Amino acid sequence: MQKIAVIMGSDSDLPIAEKAVAVLKEFEVPCTVRVMSAHRTPDEAAAFAKAARADGIGAIIAIAGKAAHLAGAIAANTTLPVIAVPAGGSTLGGLDALLSSVEMPPGIPVATVGISNGANAALLAVEMLAIADRDAEARLSAYRKGLSDKVRAKDAEISSRF
Amino acid sequence: MQKIAVIMGSDSDLPIAEKAVAVLKEFEVPCTVRVMSAHRTPDEAAAFAKAARADGIGAIIAIAGKAAHLAGAIAANTTLPVIAVPAGGSTLGGLDALLSSVEMPPGIPVATVGISNGANAALLAVEMLAIADRDAEARLSAYRKGLSDKVRAKDAEISSRF
Amino acid sequence: MQKIAVIMGSDSDLPIAEKAVAVLKEFEVPCTVRVMSAHRTPDEAAAFAKAARADGIGAIIAIAGKAAHLAGAIAANTTLPVIAVPAGGSTLGGLDALLSSVEMPPGIPVATVGISNGANAALLAVEMLAIADRDAEARLSAYRKGLSDKVRAKDAEISSRF
Amino acid sequence: MQKIAVIMGSDSDLPIAEKAVAVLKEFEVPCTVRVMSAHRTPDEAAAFAKAARADGIGAIIAIAGKAAHLAGAIAANTTLPVIAVPAGGSTLGGLDALLSSVEMPPGIPVATVGISNGANAALLAVEMLAIADRDAEARLSAYRKGLSDKVRAKDAEISSRF
Amino acid sequence: MQKIAVIMGSDSDLPIAEKAVAVLKEFEVPCTVRVMSAHRTPDEAAAFAKAARADGIGAIIAIAGKAAHLAGAIAANTTLPVIAVPAGGSTLGGLDALLSSVEMPPGIPVATVGISNGANAALLAVEMLAIADRDAEARLSAYRKGLSDKVRAKDAEISSRF
Amino acid sequence: MQKIAVIMGSDSDLPIAEKAVAVLKEFEVPCTVRVMSAHRTPDEAAAFAKAARADGIGAIIAIAGKAAHLAGAIAANTTLPVIAVPAGGSTLGGLDALLSSVEMPPGIPVATVGISNGANAALLAVEMLAIADRDAEARLSAYRKGLSDKVRAKDAEISSRF
Amino acid sequence: MQKIAVIMGSDSDLPIAEKAVAVLKEFEVPCTVRVMSAHRTPDEAAAFAKAARADGIGAIIAIAGKAAHLAGAIAANTTLPVIAVPAGGSTLGGLDALLSSVEMPPGIPVATVGISNGANAALLAVEMLAIADRDAEARLSAYRKGLSDKVRAKDAEISSRF
Amino acid sequence: MQKIAVIMGSDSDLPIAEKAVAVLKEFEVPCTVRVMSAHRTPDEAAAFAKAARADGIGAIIAIAGKAAHLAGAIAANTTLPVIAVPAGGSTLGGLDALLSSVEMPPGIPVATVGISNGANAALLAVEMLAIADRDAEARLSAYRKGLSDKVRAKDAEISSRF
Repeated sequence: MQKIAVIMGSDSDLPIAEKAVAVLKEFEVPCTVRVMSAHRTPDEAAAFAKAARADGIGAIIAIAGKAAHLAGAIAANTTLPVIAVPAGGSTLGGLDALLSSVEMPPGIPVATVGISNGANAALLAVEMLAIADRDAEARLSAYRKGLSDKVRAKDAEISSRF
Repeated sequence: MQKIAVIMGSDSDLPIAEKAVAVLKEFEVPCTVRVMSAHRTPDEAAAFAKAARADGIGAIIAIAGKAAHLAGAIAANTTLPVIAVPAGGSTLGGLDALLSSVEMPPGIPVATVGISNGANAALLAVEMLAIADRDAEARLSAYRKGLSDKVRAKDAEISSRF
Repeated sequence: MQKIAVIMGSDSDLPIAEKAVAVLKEFEVPCTVRVMSAHRTPDEAAAFAKAARADGIGAIIAIAGKAAHLAGAIAANTTLPVIAVPAGGSTLGGLDALLSSVEMPPGIPVATVGISNGANAALLAVEMLAIADRDAEARLSAYRKGLSDKVRAKDAEISSRF
Repeated sequence: MQKIAVIMGSDSDLPIAEKAVAVLKEFEVPCTVRVMSAHRTPDEAAAFAKAARADGIGAIIAIAGKAAHLAGAIAANTTLPVIAVPAGGSTLGGLDALLSSVEMPPGIPVATVGISNGANAALLAVEMLAIADRDAEARLSAYRKGLSDKVRAKDAEISSRF
Repeated sequence: MQKIAVIMGSDSDLPIAEKAVAVLKEFEVPCTVRVMSAHRTPDEAAAFAKAARADGIGAIIAIAGKAAHLAGAIAANTTLPVIAVPAGGSTLGGLDALLSSVEMPPGIPVATVGISNGANAALLAVEMLAIADRDAEARLSAYRKGLSDKVRAKDAEISSRF
Repeated sequence: MQKIAVIMGSDSDLPIAEKAVAVLKEFEVPCTVRVMSAHRTPDEAAAFAKAARADGIGAIIAIAGKAAHLAGAIAANTTLPVIAVPAGGSTLGGLDALLSSVEMPPGIPVATVGISNGANAALLAVEMLAIADRDAEARLSAYRKGLSDKVRAKDAEISSRF
Repeated sequence: MQKIAVIMGSDSDLPIAEKAVAVLKEFEVPCTVRVMSAHRTPDEAAAFAKAARADGIGAIIAIAGKAAHLAGAIAANTTLPVIAVPAGGSTLGGLDALLSSVEMPPGIPVATVGISNGANAALLAVEMLAIADRDAEARLSAYRKGLSDKVRAKDAEISSRF
Repeated sequence: MQKIAVIMGSDSDLPIAEKAVAVLKEFEVPCTVRVMSAHRTPDEAAAFAKAARADGIGAIIAIAGKAAHLAGAIAANTTLPVIAVPAGGSTLGGLDALLSSVEMPPGIPVATVGISNGANAALLAVEMLAIADRDAEARLSAYRKGLSDKVRAKDAEISSRF
């Protein structure tokens, strides 16, 4: 199975990255976690992206805030799918990071998930791997069933209270 | 090669769908184009999503405007990757569709691309297929080279003008 | 008298639901409180909506945050009036939930109230029942009088302070 | 059957009102159409609202733009359900009218539909009447079927093109 | 000298009102402080506005949040200048109250000051009175000089630190 | 009677100024119309503001777009009431001009009216003069009656059509 | 005198670039005009930025729309001042480009000017050169005088009309 | 070497100013720190700006919040480059200050950096000085290397954890 890379523009994004890693671990998907910056280490970011496919990476999750260029900078240098997680910690609640991530020009797509939603980035990465991997798909279905069961349990508990 | 489904919530979204289809054709990726609505044909949308993987679909592109629920409604019923294209034709310039598409709850991811950006949705779908498909990857690399060449040609033309 | 259903997409919305229930209890309107998710339990949500009228429900209050699809998903499956309460807990202050709730396409209306305003959702539901129910109307008029009286009392207290 | 009042703050809102009236006519719901302003004819608006229930009105649709106070001004003077249609013609695309309509204080609810969405306001009004009216409910179900059929027809046409 | 009325839609706006009153007291401008609601006590609000000029009031400061209709509802019933203070306590940071206050239709103006800026509302009211009142103008000039002096003192202190 | 100054930051704001002047003429209020810029002719703007009261001006209407500093720059140099009209012609629909006008710091108020709403600025200026001018007040009351009559006439015409 | 580079992410930004070039020509500042993309030709963009100072460039104006990363991508690779012009042509009126340009992380500044404001970018570049260039400063002062004169001429013309 | 002036509209902006000063000190760039207000001390601000170049200042950093006019007011009175730092402390998260700072009219540019980003303002000022100052450029390159090294160190630490 290919690895998922979880990269963040700053170590302040670590809590979001940890949510992504937790999901990947639950799915037993190997991952690599890196700090690199589109602006402070642009050469490393470009080199990482160019080598990613050859390094056995299947998809890249890029977490960044404010003028969040990391996902776009990575996507410019690879044809692997790049998933952006806009970090929500700015005074604008992450609207800046969301627009900076999602409004890519035609030709270089980025797959953006919700603000600070590291878990969904990881699930999306697993879904991508599962296109051609029955095993991963089975685990996704089980995970979904678990989600439904939790909602049903909450429903049972709360509906009985009133 | 798996098919890509391009679905739209209303036939008014057809121009965006056509941009996605044009890219898929350029990549010789088979596709199916459908109109279905999270609100007006919810059962069809759910049934489509549930059957999609078995029907040979590899990823689903969902185009919708305003309170754009289509991508989320599809994602709720499949573990295939779902790509949302928020349509920009509302009085709010598509901000409503963008937030309705991207801000999914933890557990059910949607991969959102830029407002009305049908081409990027298709390219992202091809990138997903290309994770495990060398051929598709080669075509993506060639496509990227074509994009670069066009920018370079424009650069040559414009820089010589001044 | 018909029941009002108060449903929430996640148990984190419970405080908003409780405000709605408190108002319904004050009006002695029977209610049922449920947790169901447009994305994690879509079949339950659809089934609930389809059966709601037959189950004696007169109107449905749906509380959800972020890409708040719950009210729309319910409205797609019933002709009962559906009242959306956008939950305000996102980094965007609920603007995402508001637009996701209110900007429904022509054909499937949702009645949206203010961000996190569970009380008004309940009052709106009672007003709907009161169209054809003199008793409920009388209680609404009394409630309104109580509101006015509270404002007048505050006015008396505060205006005398200065 | 009770009448639905369709009121607008300015005759520039007439195109939106006409969409509402067209739906009401399709449902054979009697309606009255009025121009009144929360700011330019406040006494008339208040008097209209106070008399509405006695005048055989079941719900009120209020259309207004910018600082859209009409729905709130009406709701302050009646316990009938009031449906707000924020008009989208401002330089802000109707965001001003949306927030002015929907963010009502606890105690006085307004049911807000999408920006300039006159049709949905009318459908919501019919849904309210249909809580206690089997006939209206039957027509709503038929209308919904018609909507679905149109989507299916578009689906057949468009899917066959590609 | 005419009185300034400081009215608020809810006693939760009292801290903003107190800032306005403090300025008015500093200027020895008589004032009356009231709680009244465009939605919960609309008749009182209209009656207050209609009688205000005869009651010796020269200008009215109206403080309200969310769908802030109070200033507009007052302005609809008087030709006295009405100053709106949008309260900033909503999940949207007062953007809702700002737009609801400022975007009045042609014909019925409201003078809007900054979000939660009770002091400026009072100063604006004094400026209005001072159009025809040399004494008030002299106090305003002195107040302004005081403001400048405070900035100069801060400048002296801070510039010497570095 | 004191004059009203109508100033604009650029001659592109002339259509808004003309709406203000038309209202002032209707009220027979003398006015002076000027072009001056907070940024391109700051000295003239400051000198104008400092001399305004002595020049017989009672209130100043300042029209400007984008980073609309004109009203604030004038207010900084006079204790006359300054009315800001944010011009709506920017790509952001005037949200930039609105926030630049209204969010003044404590101490220096500006009275902001709706985006591009020149008429309301003039009416507000007349209301300020009318605090101490019975004649002006009588004309305002008549003007208001005219507004109401127009709404009533539209009401009669439109309500009879349906 | 050092050159100013005017670069654009797409030839659709040419009208904005032309406004910048026109100003630079008026100031007789040599310039070079280029098309390069942070996403489609990232290597060229990085190489250009790394070589810029040695190539005799004094400051770089980068024009881009939507997720406008160009200025940031250039700034990441040079210590020359980089001026961003957010292009306003998106459905969001350039708010996306503005936030993507201005909200850079600490360490890598970008100097952002107004949406689509190519002229101001050029003037800012000239101001930077003029820090150490008396001649350029003299031309800037003359240019400013010209601006003031135009405002004064418009003032004379318009004030005489009323 | 020329001085950098760091000015703030209110002493509440001091924490942002201190971040700018800390960077300037690290670069051994002399600086002067001042409090002055576009609205409360407009004459001082204009006089300061007019004298700045003669006083040996090379660039001016202006920090202000809400309707942030300070940078524009300074830029109107000097041809030195003016850098705006929009302060983020308003209820709107600094969106008001950002738009008030950046949307300057053609002719009078302001270089805007990110919300509350005092460090970047200082770095941008140093970059401006470094256009013609090899020494400053060398220090900037070293500073950048330090930034990269910190990211690399964090990368080493965090990547080894997973």
